[in-house]
Amino acid sequence: MQRIFNFAAGPAIMPEQALRRAAEEMLNYRGSGMSVMEMSHRSAGYQEIFDHTVSLLRSLMDIPDTYEVLLLQGGATGQFAAAALNLLQHSADYVDSGHFAHGAMTEAAKYGRVRCAASTRETGYSRVPAPGEIDADPNADYLYITTNNTIYGTSLYYVPRVSVPIVADMSSNILSAPCDVRDYGVIFAGAQKNIGPAGLTVVIVRRDLLGRAQEITPNVLNWTVMAEKGSMLNTPPTYAIYMAGLCLEWLRDQGGVAGIYERNRRKAAMLYDYLDGSRLFRGKAEKQSRSLMNVTFSTGDADTDAVFAREAAQAGLVSLKGHRIAGGMRASIYNAMPEEGVCRLVEFMADFEKKHR
Amino acid sequence: MQRIFNFAAGPAIMPEQALRRAAEEMLNYRGSGMSVMEMSHRSAGYQEIFDHTVSLLRSLMDIPDTYEVLLLQGGATGQFAAAALNLLQHSADYVDSGHFAHGAMTEAAKYGRVRCAASTRETGYSRVPAPGEIDADPNADYLYITTNNTIYGTSLYYVPRVSVPIVADMSSNILSAPCDVRDYGVIFAGAQKNIGPAGLTVVIVRRDLLGRAQEITPNVLNWTVMAEKGSMLNTPPTYAIYMAGLCLEWLRDQGGVAGIYERNRRKAAMLYDYLDGSRLFRGKAEKQSRSLMNVTFSTGDADTDAVFAREAAQAGLVSLKGHRIAGGMRASIYNAMPEEGVCRLVEFMADFEKKHR
Repeated sequence: MQRIFNFAAGPAIMPEQALRRAAEEMLNYRGSGMSVMEMSHRSAGYQEIFDHTVSLLRSLMDIPDTYEVLLLQGGATGQFAAAALNLLQHSADYVDSGHFAHGAMTEAAKYGRVRCAASTRETGYSRVPAPGEIDADPNADYLYITTNNTIYGTSLYYVPRVSVPIVADMSSNILSAPCDVRDYGVIFAGAQKNIGPAGLTVVIVRRDLLGRAQEITPNVLNWTVMAEKGSMLNTPPTYAIYMAGLCLEWLRDQGGVAGIYERNRRKAAMLYDYLDGSRLFRGKAEKQSRSLMNVTFSTGDADTDAVFAREAAQAGLVSLKGHRIAGGMRASIYNAMPEEGVCRLVEFMADFEKKHR
Repeated sequence: MQRIFNFAAGPAIMPEQALRRAAEEMLNYRGSGMSVMEMSHRSAGYQEIFDHTVSLLRSLMDIPDTYEVLLLQGGATGQFAAAALNLLQHSADYVDSGHFAHGAMTEAAKYGRVRCAASTRETGYSRVPAPGEIDADPNADYLYITTNNTIYGTSLYYVPRVSVPIVADMSSNILSAPCDVRDYGVIFAGAQKNIGPAGLTVVIVRRDLLGRAQEITPNVLNWTVMAEKGSMLNTPPTYAIYMAGLCLEWLRDQGGVAGIYERNRRKAAMLYDYLDGSRLFRGKAEKQSRSLMNVTFSTGDADTDAVFAREAAQAGLVSLKGHRIAGGMRASIYNAMPEEGVCRLVEFMADFEKKHR
């Protein structure tokens, strides 16, 4: 059996080039006589792999030297706590644009005062708040945003104009489109969508924001401690970091973020154009908020949705079922999803539409 | 070049059988058309992999149903905080038997009152405290021990007789020798020595100890929340869990813990017997505390030690340099180190001794 097209929301499809390389090097990494998994994180050989991954990330995102790049564990969910533990002193503002944004706000409330600066919760998160809807406190320690809402298929296409540092959860759209790191105080992302395998969390933090952690911050979530230790206070997720390097090499070979952005726009346009003309399927997110990474849609009938997801899977287009709290379908078309996969999906949808209208 | 013998303290040598299988399945896991790295953690296919790993661990360690098995992120260092956050209400007792035990105590002090119930810090941790040296508080929330001290090459060969729950960091000797889980309230271990790759942390917790977490516990470190969510509050380190399953299958094939224990005793005896007869090398740990997993030794001269580690590496016996805070040499001979590796090391030491006496 061949490899199929995997539309999962994360862990998700990865570049075949990276997987092939990993398979080849599994038992003997470039003449070292061992697998990367077996290498001491304190060895010179492993440090090279670690530095290579960081260096690719710095180059692909044009991260200034005034920012630390940390490679940690615990996922974005760990960073929901870490954001507050590392920065919250008086009060923090949150933009509640989806399930995970809301979860981040709830988690932060364990560690101090949080304010909801804007929310689209009442409209079922079918869009993100508009710039004018954000009621930001100029004295907040930070403003927290989620740049892409994986479950609802919405994206924040602007940087809020505020004077306080912006903390951005970019888990599901990091490296998918141009982004000026200088607009943010902190960017973090779970790796399992556009970076590499699950179990690695990237944190990009402006150095002047270090040194503010609450005393109760667990060391593994303390950005200041981790920055001092080069992310190696303890053993990092060594193999996931190596895999991220292989995936980022692939991204570099695709023309970097600018190159992949063009392809991502074509992929999303193909799907949204089809949805806009369909008489069976409807896109779920409001147009101005539509995500390039997660395309949510439905036939409006749960049974038909279920038949669609099942038949699509039989045709080699898998994991199209939407998140349980949103229902319907979701096609996650991260960087590694080839245009061919989206073409095949649109063809399949058109065929399905002919049969089910 | 062939695979070499890797004596690193963790990440460490892994069973070749597991690595081979991982390489074969990298692009297409058992006909699924995708890599395990690409599988949604919410898919039925991945849940099977997850359950298989937990089930192997339960069977190999004979874990009673009254215990939860959690597969988390953040390493043992994350659990230093988690132990206190999940259990510390009034006061906790710590046995300070090494660098990491001491670190666990320091981390726990962020969250409440900790008492040192015994310490061998003043003797440079060359042995662990004897049973009679443990001054345990019968009202403590728990007694914390480290069953193997990776840096110093010492091991605790008894279970302290106390009435309070014992929390044990077994990172460097889990699954290496018989152990009755019922003697402990909580057992945790970073995977990167005897379980699988770095980035996975196993926590085995008696169910009646759940429900006590402090309100400030980050969700990713909250055993109760993670137990309720089957370790999937957020995306777990999916590939590391799969690799752990492959490694545990190998351990099962070796006759399980009882089988590997016999081999581990032979391996350690070979090295310690040589050390006891050597006129150049000396074992560093006191005899009654000697670890089966980490054998520390030295020539007593830092320059000669450095020459030894360098020449051994050239001969395919790598990562023998001791931890920077202990100096000398350390041969970590975890489950996956074959007897042949230890034979080769002893032969190399004997040759080296002839040249350098």
